[in-house]
Amino acid sequence: MTSNENRISPLHGAGGEMMSRLLAEHVLPHFAASQVGRIGLSAMDDGATIALPTAGELVMTTDSHVVKPIFFPGGDIGKLAAAGTLNDLAVMGARPLALSLAVIIEEDFPISDIDRIVESFAHTLIGSQTPLICGDTKVMGRGEIDGIVINTTGLGIANPAISDAGAVPGDVIIVTGSMGDHGMALLAAREEFHLETELKSDVDSIWPMIRTILPIGGIHAMKDPTRGGLAAALNEMSGKSGTTIELTQSAIPIRDEVQALSDLLGISPLEVANEGKAVLIVDPALADQILETLQKHPLGRHAAIIGIVGTKFPGRVVMTTPVGGRRFLDMPLGDPVPRIC
Amino acid sequence: MTSNENRISPLHGAGGEMMSRLLAEHVLPHFAASQVGRIGLSAMDDGATIALPTAGELVMTTDSHVVKPIFFPGGDIGKLAAAGTLNDLAVMGARPLALSLAVIIEEDFPISDIDRIVESFAHTLIGSQTPLICGDTKVMGRGEIDGIVINTTGLGIANPAISDAGAVPGDVIIVTGSMGDHGMALLAAREEFHLETELKSDVDSIWPMIRTILPIGGIHAMKDPTRGGLAAALNEMSGKSGTTIELTQSAIPIRDEVQALSDLLGISPLEVANEGKAVLIVDPALADQILETLQKHPLGRHAAIIGIVGTKFPGRVVMTTPVGGRRFLDMPLGDPVPRIC
Repeated sequence: MTSNENRISPLHGAGGEMMSRLLAEHVLPHFAASQVGRIGLSAMDDGATIALPTAGELVMTTDSHVVKPIFFPGGDIGKLAAAGTLNDLAVMGARPLALSLAVIIEEDFPISDIDRIVESFAHTLIGSQTPLICGDTKVMGRGEIDGIVINTTGLGIANPAISDAGAVPGDVIIVTGSMGDHGMALLAAREEFHLETELKSDVDSIWPMIRTILPIGGIHAMKDPTRGGLAAALNEMSGKSGTTIELTQSAIPIRDEVQALSDLLGISPLEVANEGKAVLIVDPALADQILETLQKHPLGRHAAIIGIVGTKFPGRVVMTTPVGGRRFLDMPLGDPVPRIC
Repeated sequence: MTSNENRISPLHGAGGEMMSRLLAEHVLPHFAASQVGRIGLSAMDDGATIALPTAGELVMTTDSHVVKPIFFPGGDIGKLAAAGTLNDLAVMGARPLALSLAVIIEEDFPISDIDRIVESFAHTLIGSQTPLICGDTKVMGRGEIDGIVINTTGLGIANPAISDAGAVPGDVIIVTGSMGDHGMALLAAREEFHLETELKSDVDSIWPMIRTILPIGGIHAMKDPTRGGLAAALNEMSGKSGTTIELTQSAIPIRDEVQALSDLLGISPLEVANEGKAVLIVDPALADQILETLQKHPLGRHAAIIGIVGTKFPGRVVMTTPVGGRRFLDMPLGDPVPRIC
């Protein structure tokens, strides 16, 4: 068998000379400044070190990304892997300290695609001033893995961390922008649907926006509505706090093209993933200030108050429809779109 | 299509009710005490918190595990995923603070196998008094992933961290036990070889052993010889320190059955992975004390001094053979056994 220098071979994941060269030529150059302790990424040691912060709580979060297709309108698996983990830290109120990057690649995967993905990943990290400090590369055979999957684990520091369980009756519910963009854009991009749309994923790191509201205080609960969408996020938040979340459907920002595709396919935009949004449950006295601050950031222009926290149906989400009816917005059984993130 | 309750369905990875149930019934019960901060695994939040240690350096490490077969003589992918990351922390001199667990599972994978893997993972963590604090579950379709792959990321605290670059001429080289067990056991277990052997992987968490030698001091460099085996580990260690590593081949502990299979297949036991061993480069004045302390631990019974650090060939590893010849032990191009870990 002739090996093709432009494609991944099993030796690229085998811990030897070939792997070192792949990392040195295609990964490390993007992360030249990635060091937050004595031992950084470029040391290629068994791990990396981080100088101990002086105050706060450490926050750790992990996500594997299996999105399909790996390049999609508005982003790619590299941007998604960075944003997904940065956003999990952000909604915990945590400033990112460091990320890890572990990739599993299929044999014969184009190295040029690795370059695009790593560059996109690095760009997203740099935008949130976050170093990549450690990583891992594995290769599986043809047909053993579909292209590439990426795990990112993030470490952050919060003072204090914000859970998703802190809703209190009287609180106000805010979303930072339109719902359903990522899920619907992915769905439209799938080959099997042959849809031509202008839809773009909202995938982005929201930390630069979230950091502007943390000093205000008053955020009782926060979550990023990824898999299962807003419906899953709010059901978790009401369930954990034993409160009722009362939504006004017409207040929930949804792009016209997202709504149109939703209507066409019979899939609710409230049940599909977002990758650049947060839902916040906040002190009513500070809600306007938080909303206005969000709206000043490019990622939060369409932030809106979408409901309040009540007590009537503990652990449930109730939605008032545009014609004045009310219905429960239930926990989805699962996301209607597989491999969405 | 009838869904089979005993197998993984796409909904188990979709962020909704089905995923919550899978985690609540098959994962969380194994990690009842997994909390090291205000927000632990059972909170099922976007991340988990860790109370800030008071002194030391944080150490972070990540590994994806794609081992095949997933159940092998001496262990399984669960034990490997736990030990692999605990060992990376251990060889950095870091006490494990917390691990994350991110699994990607193929549709129709048996839930009974998930149970075995999670139990084995949990058992290994408990043996090193390490909590699992956060996780992620994704499902890919049939033929999109070969069974199950697992990422574990570990966070530890070291005071100070030990790199793999600190060798100094005059130092003594110690391995904590026999070389090549994991790689050769895996190779023998592969269906295509139809080999019947007594070989078992050495996969285990070495933290309980490493913690006994850290108070002695004098460890200048440490590494776990996984992919690429002892040859890769020592070449990295000599290369980074610019020293020469001088080995006495007859001093390297290798099990008879490992050597026999190596001879049969023409694969060097020094180039295949170990998953329960460490190689240490230590101050000569403390070498005997470190060796004796290692030998007192069940995992270190066969620990041995295998060489010294010199200066003659900077960045190279030289080995004196049993008949008195000398040869370079080069960096392997890659591990001869794919999907070894």
